[in-house]
Amino acid sequence: MKTGSCRICPDNFIRLRNMPSAFPVISTQVVVAAFPVGMVKASDMTVVQTALPPLADGQVLIETEYLSLDPAIRYWLNPTDTYVPGAKIGEPVRCFAAGRISASQHPDFVVGDVCSGLLNAQSHVIFDVIESAKIGMGLTRCDLGLGPLSQHLGVLGMPGMTAYFGLLERGKPVAGNSVFVSAASGTVGATVGQIAKLKGCRVVGSAGSAEKCRWLVEEMGFDAAFDYKSESAAVALKRLQPNGVDVYFDNVGGDTLDGVLLNLARGARVVLCGALSMYNTQCHEGGNAGLRNYMKLIMARATMNGIVVFDFFPQWPQATAEIAGWLKSGQLHAAEHIEVGIEKFPQALVALFAGAHKGKQLVQVVPNQRAPGLAAAT
Amino acid sequence: MKTGSCRICPDNFIRLRNMPSAFPVISTQVVVAAFPVGMVKASDMTVVQTALPPLADGQVLIETEYLSLDPAIRYWLNPTDTYVPGAKIGEPVRCFAAGRISASQHPDFVVGDVCSGLLNAQSHVIFDVIESAKIGMGLTRCDLGLGPLSQHLGVLGMPGMTAYFGLLERGKPVAGNSVFVSAASGTVGATVGQIAKLKGCRVVGSAGSAEKCRWLVEEMGFDAAFDYKSESAAVALKRLQPNGVDVYFDNVGGDTLDGVLLNLARGARVVLCGALSMYNTQCHEGGNAGLRNYMKLIMARATMNGIVVFDFFPQWPQATAEIAGWLKSGQLHAAEHIEVGIEKFPQALVALFAGAHKGKQLVQVVPNQRAPGLAAAT
Repeated sequence: MKTGSCRICPDNFIRLRNMPSAFPVISTQVVVAAFPVGMVKASDMTVVQTALPPLADGQVLIETEYLSLDPAIRYWLNPTDTYVPGAKIGEPVRCFAAGRISASQHPDFVVGDVCSGLLNAQSHVIFDVIESAKIGMGLTRCDLGLGPLSQHLGVLGMPGMTAYFGLLERGKPVAGNSVFVSAASGTVGATVGQIAKLKGCRVVGSAGSAEKCRWLVEEMGFDAAFDYKSESAAVALKRLQPNGVDVYFDNVGGDTLDGVLLNLARGARVVLCGALSMYNTQCHEGGNAGLRNYMKLIMARATMNGIVVFDFFPQWPQATAEIAGWLKSGQLHAAEHIEVGIEKFPQALVALFAGAHKGKQLVQVVPNQRAPGLAAAT
Repeated sequence: MKTGSCRICPDNFIRLRNMPSAFPVISTQVVVAAFPVGMVKASDMTVVQTALPPLADGQVLIETEYLSLDPAIRYWLNPTDTYVPGAKIGEPVRCFAAGRISASQHPDFVVGDVCSGLLNAQSHVIFDVIESAKIGMGLTRCDLGLGPLSQHLGVLGMPGMTAYFGLLERGKPVAGNSVFVSAASGTVGATVGQIAKLKGCRVVGSAGSAEKCRWLVEEMGFDAAFDYKSESAAVALKRLQPNGVDVYFDNVGGDTLDGVLLNLARGARVVLCGALSMYNTQCHEGGNAGLRNYMKLIMARATMNGIVVFDFFPQWPQATAEIAGWLKSGQLHAAEHIEVGIEKFPQALVALFAGAHKGKQLVQVVPNQRAPGLAAAT
């Protein structure tokens, strides 16, 4: 078992050495049952099993280990094409995931490689490396020397990269700046705040409970935090950042963003990352209540722009290396909440928007669920 | 009369050589009678005569020749402090004006100098050069060799500078870009569009009548124009700039800005200059309907920021020289509409927001109205 063993799942690796003769593979998939209207419900998704076709040239077969729960999933569940194609009924829910290659028809990837990417909510995925790379959604090799696989979906993956490039490349914080981040108890927010602290900034976060605020200050090292359910950003920031906000990393939109616009320091940078407050209820074009105070950007000589993390794809390796260094030195902390079993995905997504947990939220695909069809075939 | 004569008003100059012995000077002033609620009304202003005190050190006395009508006046009529102090009942309406120095207690200015600045709606003004310079609102010397005095309030003055720096420094157009400007028949808009054409861009403007649209295309050289009263920006831009807007110079806010956000080209720059659509009805904090599509900035990798023309004050001379060159070569056209008589100021301001005229709108302070007190005293 020593040679060829897999630190994720030794049993599996042995079995998969027989690929691709073991096709057809049966994949357990969480698919779109209905386009969500308003708050996403577990019933908007359903779990099915699907036989996968044989691999074509340029494709790899990946067995997923972790599915990533990110706010963007709600956005991707809309049928409208955005920077990714719109959702379709019956197709797997779009999400990031990480796993191991169990068959390959692509010369750059071999069986056993550990990768992450937009693999979607499924136990097995046929991934077209060439086609995906064309639209900048390629496969990322996960170096387990940097951190465990789950972290490659969090602080070492898309949310970490969003925090890193959004803060540093768009927010451009300098030591002494006042940085404010909303949804600060999520992976992106907690990482933004901690990196801003590393850069010598004074950091305030908002979150949805007193316990989360305590955690931000006592465990994540924020200078202050406030519960947005009991105090508006407009009021809290006058108290906590009385000289104005130099960098606002916006994960929520809505009233919080409007409140920040009333509290901008001169030359402020507003980085739009997401709009948690609007994803569910007001996700469609023109459907939200609207940003009322945007004219404050003029007076503050402020700039507002957005972060699309895929734009920095070529620079991810340098960023993950730097983050891994901070993790190892204890300067950066990565919290995780993991639900076990792919069938938990729908309710875990609902829990994400309910703000039930802190840090990175994941679903672990357990081995005996991953390949029932394959087990029967071998 | 040859020596010491004044091309603006020869009579006046002779008379004013006797200053400051002629104090007290009586100034005819258009003062704030009420803070406007909704659309500004002529009755929000009243004309009074006020005796001015003697000049103190650092001050100059200026006789105004032209009062400038600009959308920002509506904003400045609110009692809230912004980048300038809020309006006060009984004080002259804040506006740009141009005129001639008729007495000076400041070493850098002598009687006869022609200047513009925030001189407000009055025939005579005591202007504190030192205090005003401290807040970046200094006096600008008008070089009549560049163009007639009225143009120093238009294309060679604040609106021209707003267009020049807003477009070039914030919008950063490059040849081949699609540029859209709203309120294009105003001074700022018409200048933005013409400069963008000089830079090799394809330029579309919006205005409030078919006649204004005709004028933009046939006389100002725009590639296309549409009447926002009969077609929304969201729809018109899909037709007129189908590859998206690279630079949007926003003079109006509201639905037009929201419509542009649906039509951004990748990497677009949105330059916030004003919000004509909101100045009157929804000027107060949080009072407007709100910007609904701002999240489109993320997908478009677009940036939104504002232009505060005073920030470029040190660079005005270089910009006015360049604009004067374009005027002289016929590459840039400056339209004007002038009402004669300071008492016309309130109704001219109302007409500005009603969109009654094209180009720069001015009130000329006629000499026999300018110094009734002074005339009696000499």
